[in-house]
Amino acid sequence: MNGKFIVVEGLEGAGKSSVIGLIVKHLQEARIAVEQTREPGGTPMAEAIRECVKHDWDETVAEETELLLMYAARVQLLTNRILPALNAGQWVVGDRHDLSSQAYQGGGRGVSADTMTAISKIALNGFKPNLTLYLDVEPAIGLERARGRGELDRIEQAGLAFFERTRERYLSLAAQDDSIVVINAMQAMEDVHKDVITAVQEYLS
Amino acid sequence: MNGKFIVVEGLEGAGKSSVIGLIVKHLQEARIAVEQTREPGGTPMAEAIRECVKHDWDETVAEETELLLMYAARVQLLTNRILPALNAGQWVVGDRHDLSSQAYQGGGRGVSADTMTAISKIALNGFKPNLTLYLDVEPAIGLERARGRGELDRIEQAGLAFFERTRERYLSLAAQDDSIVVINAMQAMEDVHKDVITAVQEYLS
Repeated sequence: MNGKFIVVEGLEGAGKSSVIGLIVKHLQEARIAVEQTREPGGTPMAEAIRECVKHDWDETVAEETELLLMYAARVQLLTNRILPALNAGQWVVGDRHDLSSQAYQGGGRGVSADTMTAISKIALNGFKPNLTLYLDVEPAIGLERARGRGELDRIEQAGLAFFERTRERYLSLAAQDDSIVVINAMQAMEDVHKDVITAVQEYLS
Repeated sequence: MNGKFIVVEGLEGAGKSSVIGLIVKHLQEARIAVEQTREPGGTPMAEAIRECVKHDWDETVAEETELLLMYAARVQLLTNRILPALNAGQWVVGDRHDLSSQAYQGGGRGVSADTMTAISKIALNGFKPNLTLYLDVEPAIGLERARGRGELDRIEQAGLAFFERTRERYLSLAAQDDSIVVINAMQAMEDVHKDVITAVQEYLS
């Protein structure tokens, strides 16, 4: 594998999309071939699974169902897009990956550590990104921004306490893993972008 | 929980549908309230997951994706239909349950025993049917019957060797579990039905 996998993570309204655009542009200027992915989704089957998991069902969605669907979509994307791209020497910039499940399902929903470890092993078998940028934002600020964009989906409606737990898990996982860089996403956008470029350049060098 | 969960299992073309009809009629005649379920599926969300897993995608469907989707659908059905019915004192007659994944994904696809154990624990946490009737049929015979009904789906197209491995796994799991009764489904239908009624009556008494 010659390509590298860079993932951008964060709560709703953290500003992932603009950061992803910035990274892709930066890599392309360095003449690196880049693929973009988003999770859940990114292949026709994974997008259909995304529909299932995001839809506002008129029935209880069990925590385990949500978890299993997130990983089903992730395996499809990994098998059909991420691994082939990396093997072909392309870089991949991903909008979310495993850390999202660790934070949202593990932290937010409170799925046990044993379950998170077991399912991650089944689905990913040890695969992980080379670099993850976690855009840190207080949930109240992020949700305010996300609300400005339109309707929130089923998961985004989960309430502030859910997102507080999710953010805490993001931060505690980032503190234990050198490949995760925390970016303060509550700064002015130009400062966020400066920090992102610094982190990417440090990784590149 | 006062209700009981009876599951009918077997390869394509084993005759599950007619056996399920027979069991439901038999229970109703004994004045037992019965719910019917099928897997994957049985709730709106689980049926959407069924669509995802059965569809003939123009991309590789990873073994793990198939496995995770089957269990996602199973958790939804268990949470929203099977457990509520059993708790309300109703009996449930299911067209497939966990044993199908053990046989098709574990046996047919060759997913490891560790993975099968781990995912079954995540999704079901020890829940199991009270009685399972496994309708045993040689794959060549079952597939011939299934073909007569129309087009085969993605999983049903997997080839004879896949179904031979699936059948072997069904039989070896049945040999280790007293709650699974093997019915010879290659007999004349009236003899199959006689054996089914005998097994259900033995369980009832």
